[in-house]
Amino acid sequence: MKTILAEIITIGDELLIGQVVNTNATWMAQVLNRAGITVVQVTTVRDDSQAIWNAVSAAMTRVDIVLTTGGLGPTKDDITKTVLCGYFHTQLVEDPRVRAHVLALYKNRPEVLNSLTATQWLVPSHATILPNRVGSAPIMVFGKAKRLLVSMPGVPHEMQIAMTEQVLPFLREHLNLSEGIIHRTLVVYGIPESSLALRIEKWEKALPKTIHLAYLPKQGIVRLRLSSYGEATPEQMDEQISSLLPLICDHLIATDDLTPHAVLGQRLTINKQTIATAESCTGGRLAALLNEQSGSSAYYMGSVIAYDNSVKQQVLGVSPETLSTDGAVSEACVRQMAEGVRRLLHTDYAIATSGIAGPTGGTPDKPVGTVWIAWATPEGTYAECCYFSGDRNQITGNAAMASIGKLLLLLKNTQR
Amino acid sequence: MKTILAEIITIGDELLIGQVVNTNATWMAQVLNRAGITVVQVTTVRDDSQAIWNAVSAAMTRVDIVLTTGGLGPTKDDITKTVLCGYFHTQLVEDPRVRAHVLALYKNRPEVLNSLTATQWLVPSHATILPNRVGSAPIMVFGKAKRLLVSMPGVPHEMQIAMTEQVLPFLREHLNLSEGIIHRTLVVYGIPESSLALRIEKWEKALPKTIHLAYLPKQGIVRLRLSSYGEATPEQMDEQISSLLPLICDHLIATDDLTPHAVLGQRLTINKQTIATAESCTGGRLAALLNEQSGSSAYYMGSVIAYDNSVKQQVLGVSPETLSTDGAVSEACVRQMAEGVRRLLHTDYAIATSGIAGPTGGTPDKPVGTVWIAWATPEGTYAECCYFSGDRNQITGNAAMASIGKLLLLLKNTQR
Repeated sequence: MKTILAEIITIGDELLIGQVVNTNATWMAQVLNRAGITVVQVTTVRDDSQAIWNAVSAAMTRVDIVLTTGGLGPTKDDITKTVLCGYFHTQLVEDPRVRAHVLALYKNRPEVLNSLTATQWLVPSHATILPNRVGSAPIMVFGKAKRLLVSMPGVPHEMQIAMTEQVLPFLREHLNLSEGIIHRTLVVYGIPESSLALRIEKWEKALPKTIHLAYLPKQGIVRLRLSSYGEATPEQMDEQISSLLPLICDHLIATDDLTPHAVLGQRLTINKQTIATAESCTGGRLAALLNEQSGSSAYYMGSVIAYDNSVKQQVLGVSPETLSTDGAVSEACVRQMAEGVRRLLHTDYAIATSGIAGPTGGTPDKPVGTVWIAWATPEGTYAECCYFSGDRNQITGNAAMASIGKLLLLLKNTQR
Repeated sequence: MKTILAEIITIGDELLIGQVVNTNATWMAQVLNRAGITVVQVTTVRDDSQAIWNAVSAAMTRVDIVLTTGGLGPTKDDITKTVLCGYFHTQLVEDPRVRAHVLALYKNRPEVLNSLTATQWLVPSHATILPNRVGSAPIMVFGKAKRLLVSMPGVPHEMQIAMTEQVLPFLREHLNLSEGIIHRTLVVYGIPESSLALRIEKWEKALPKTIHLAYLPKQGIVRLRLSSYGEATPEQMDEQISSLLPLICDHLIATDDLTPHAVLGQRLTINKQTIATAESCTGGRLAALLNEQSGSSAYYMGSVIAYDNSVKQQVLGVSPETLSTDGAVSEACVRQMAEGVRRLLHTDYAIATSGIAGPTGGTPDKPVGTVWIAWATPEGTYAECCYFSGDRNQITGNAAMASIGKLLLLLKNTQR
């Protein structure tokens, strides 16, 4: 089977001065891989004719499909369309279908229709124009020597709808895509990457060359990903997974590429159980993480974010003695927070966090990164003191993730 | 002044199958720009010798400094160090200083020390080795024909400390960096990008060629960024800002590159006022956004995340009649939520949200993306029904951002 190779070119000054994170490339890589297309490179260049031209020209020698995003807006810094017309030797002409679409798109927002918007219905005469259902920039497909270039807008929402509804079906039809790429992921928690590597060293050495292993550590979680690029069968992949599982089962939290909050959500939904949270230092991140899951309303009741001590005391019922003697970052306080919110919102489980997110507020006793976490369950309340490194954002993110990862291991151990 | 050009090469399969978002490139681009180094390209390649070699070799012809991240871990898929040794014609030798550092790093975690970790103290004989204070992978600086390549680990926290404490000081010393790059940012809310462009068209046309304008739209906010790459003076930049300001003042929320939540935080801190939130559909994202700010504990009291209606009723005091007659996604409900949490947590301001985040739960009357937002203030309570497009994540993110952006405009209008 011929592997189809792709390169993503993301265009925009904002990506190169670090004002915007390149989430488009990540999202596109995900859906292209799922469609059996191997992404071999992502290139990000400025809104500069020469830079765009060079990146396009290099990519068109490397891969079968080049996908670009960005630089299609109506303002003067958007030059992608003009550069592509030059590279593919074509010219801009008015497209009545695109014109009608843009006029319809903005019929309830006349303030958006103006001379700049009008440049949006100028399209290259030698390109396939795919409709952009939700935006004004046309999606353009250029061809040269059996290689394709697809140009899409950079607005994430528009690009995603364009990819899903237009570009992938177009590529499927023109490239005869197969499902040759296979990924299998196991998710473990609570073991460092290198210890894990040693533990499974023998197994890894015996892996056939057709199957590739990657360690993906993030926020205390390690995803072990097995990939085959068209050479191994699903059965061969399953066989390797079966021999790997017993080596890591004590730390295993998922056998699919699922987040800890998705695993917890599935478990609570199946068991018809509910959960609540009481957050101090994580300040809403734990709740937001749990609610990323569609369908979370089935098991997630709510949260009390008790940033201020008065809220811990009055809403969650933490005793004033605990706050004055042990302080807010203490075992006693998180236990009372977890039990308090579990009682208040009538849930089966509750998680509470209290810690020092920094950058200020640390002491020699309780340095920045100290986080007490408690889990109130029908079997009793458990608490643990954790230490996280990094900045405020990393500490709160890691603490939120740990409070879920550790609950999953706790449930495994207490309920077997 | 000679402009120093840089390229970032991020290495790792995980970036090309879309499992990890490339936040490293964004962060590095930010600090490099601030240091007066212009990032002209970001290239992401797989953990593959040929791909790494090709990317390094192309970048070394384009720019003065190449910075790579990733592929320095102790596991078998990490091959960057070997490839760089090949490209720069050098060999791996044991470094006693790195060895001592790694042993000290893990002295309390003997489980991490093993034969794989031991490969971390093998370093290229012809490279400058900078210390990695928080991790085991060495930071390596290679040179070839007056161009530099810096190789750093891919773990974000390690890379950030390496850049801040080692790489930037090293580059400053070796490249005689100036502060030539100037960015000025104005942040506006509540006006579409193209209307904004038309409004300031005349001003934009008159901009000198030494000053570059970019529109950076995100979540309903547009940042207007003026940049000079060593050619305009700070006074010339200020002059342009002064003539732009009167054109956009009705939508202006910040005159620095600040987020709406940072602006709100500053305002509340200065006025010694407090805020609380009551969230339904945003499920913690609004609280998390407000608490991203260091120092938020000065003004942010807490939140009640009332995902379930029983919590809206029992904790926030929303009337059962409202819930049964108007429903949870209604003006009456968000008003009572905002007033309820303001009363409960004794704050000056409160924001409440209730809507349909999707993908399920929409009706013809209240489609997915409908979000009611209320603001309880000392001057009274205001409410607005908003519509957001996109998936669950985008809808909740945009709603959280809108609830802050609109509060800033509301405060401007009601308190002038």
